[in-house]
Amino acid sequence: MQIAYLLYDRFTALDITGPHEVLNSLPDVESVFVAEQAGPVRNESGSLALVADRTLDEVAHPDIVVVPGGFGTRVLLEHRPLLDWLRGAHETSTWTTSVCTGALLLAAAGLLEAVPAATHWAARERLASLGARPVAERVVRQGKIVTAAGVSAGIDMALELVALMRGEEAAKAIQLGIEYDPQPPFDSGSVEKAPAATVEAVRAAFDAAEREVLASFHGA
Amino acid sequence: MQIAYLLYDRFTALDITGPHEVLNSLPDVESVFVAEQAGPVRNESGSLALVADRTLDEVAHPDIVVVPGGFGTRVLLEHRPLLDWLRGAHETSTWTTSVCTGALLLAAAGLLEAVPAATHWAARERLASLGARPVAERVVRQGKIVTAAGVSAGIDMALELVALMRGEEAAKAIQLGIEYDPQPPFDSGSVEKAPAATVEAVRAAFDAAEREVLASFHGA
Repeated sequence: MQIAYLLYDRFTALDITGPHEVLNSLPDVESVFVAEQAGPVRNESGSLALVADRTLDEVAHPDIVVVPGGFGTRVLLEHRPLLDWLRGAHETSTWTTSVCTGALLLAAAGLLEAVPAATHWAARERLASLGARPVAERVVRQGKIVTAAGVSAGIDMALELVALMRGEEAAKAIQLGIEYDPQPPFDSGSVEKAPAATVEAVRAAFDAAEREVLASFHGA
Repeated sequence: MQIAYLLYDRFTALDITGPHEVLNSLPDVESVFVAEQAGPVRNESGSLALVADRTLDEVAHPDIVVVPGGFGTRVLLEHRPLLDWLRGAHETSTWTTSVCTGALLLAAAGLLEAVPAATHWAARERLASLGARPVAERVVRQGKIVTAAGVSAGIDMALELVALMRGEEAAKAIQLGIEYDPQPPFDSGSVEKAPAATVEAVRAAFDAAEREVLASFHGA
């Protein structure tokens, strides 16, 4: 079973390393980090680089596709090489998955037309504008498409996927292996639970980051 | 504020990318991935490579040190270059932290002598054998040393650290930013909660992985 983890400039690292840690714990999978070009790919802040070991062309038909989010998605919504790859991979995949704003890329590729899908809470309207039906859930499965909410939700999504593919015992063993017994010190992890002022502050910061990415793209 | 994220051959990726996603969300930090040699460093399965942008020598006195776990720790417990760096960094650090079996490296460096510390549940005995006092908690703070339990616990640890450094509001904003509202599909994330058979299966798998790493090291 081959799993392709997509990388692109300015991705969110935990979006992809979360699912990878879970799925890669399965005994018989081939995990491959892919990007348009092989080599290091940097996250949003530039602080972290993951290596793409293979190009998209070299991994055209993975069994599972994992698409992370990140502000870099905003300049890829009409980027044919990537969207063509997603469409092609999805044709033969067993599971096509996204985390956070990775759903924007699936939608841009035409894979979420009127499909219920999760994404980062701050990106729901944008996802809707691309034709999907954003829902405020942590993990949404629709046929073979599985989408997760923001960033950390990819861990929950991957555990569900393992349970679907290999049964609950396999998922429980991996959960124990990564000691996933979450104890966040606060309860502000969702837009419904966080204080309103926090929501507005984070939304403003995200809007600013998005504008910055778009400006650097159009200025490039 | 400079944060050094340590990499070494056969680390566990989520151990380091979890805290990084949280701490790197602070507006004014310099995040640096470091290793003995700069360049790509591979995780336990070899499926993922993170890039070390700087060598240990180049980042001798970070404000925060984050040490991930991984089976690679087992062959580093007498590795002077790394242990010397840890000791030196700890002398001047504001916070010295570890996730999972990263605590074994702190202990091997002599930093946890009789110190209460968290680690992966399957590594508690080994941590004790290195002079620390393993405790079954998710995050343990003792002076400026903060240790976290297995793998995913690094996210909780980093949120606590943000709250200590910048206040609860900052931590809540980051928690919302990464939509950390965990909803694991099962409740087997700790050795106390998982079925006994699952615990034994995971323990056996971990023992086997550890033996493999040790064998490849002594055979090298």
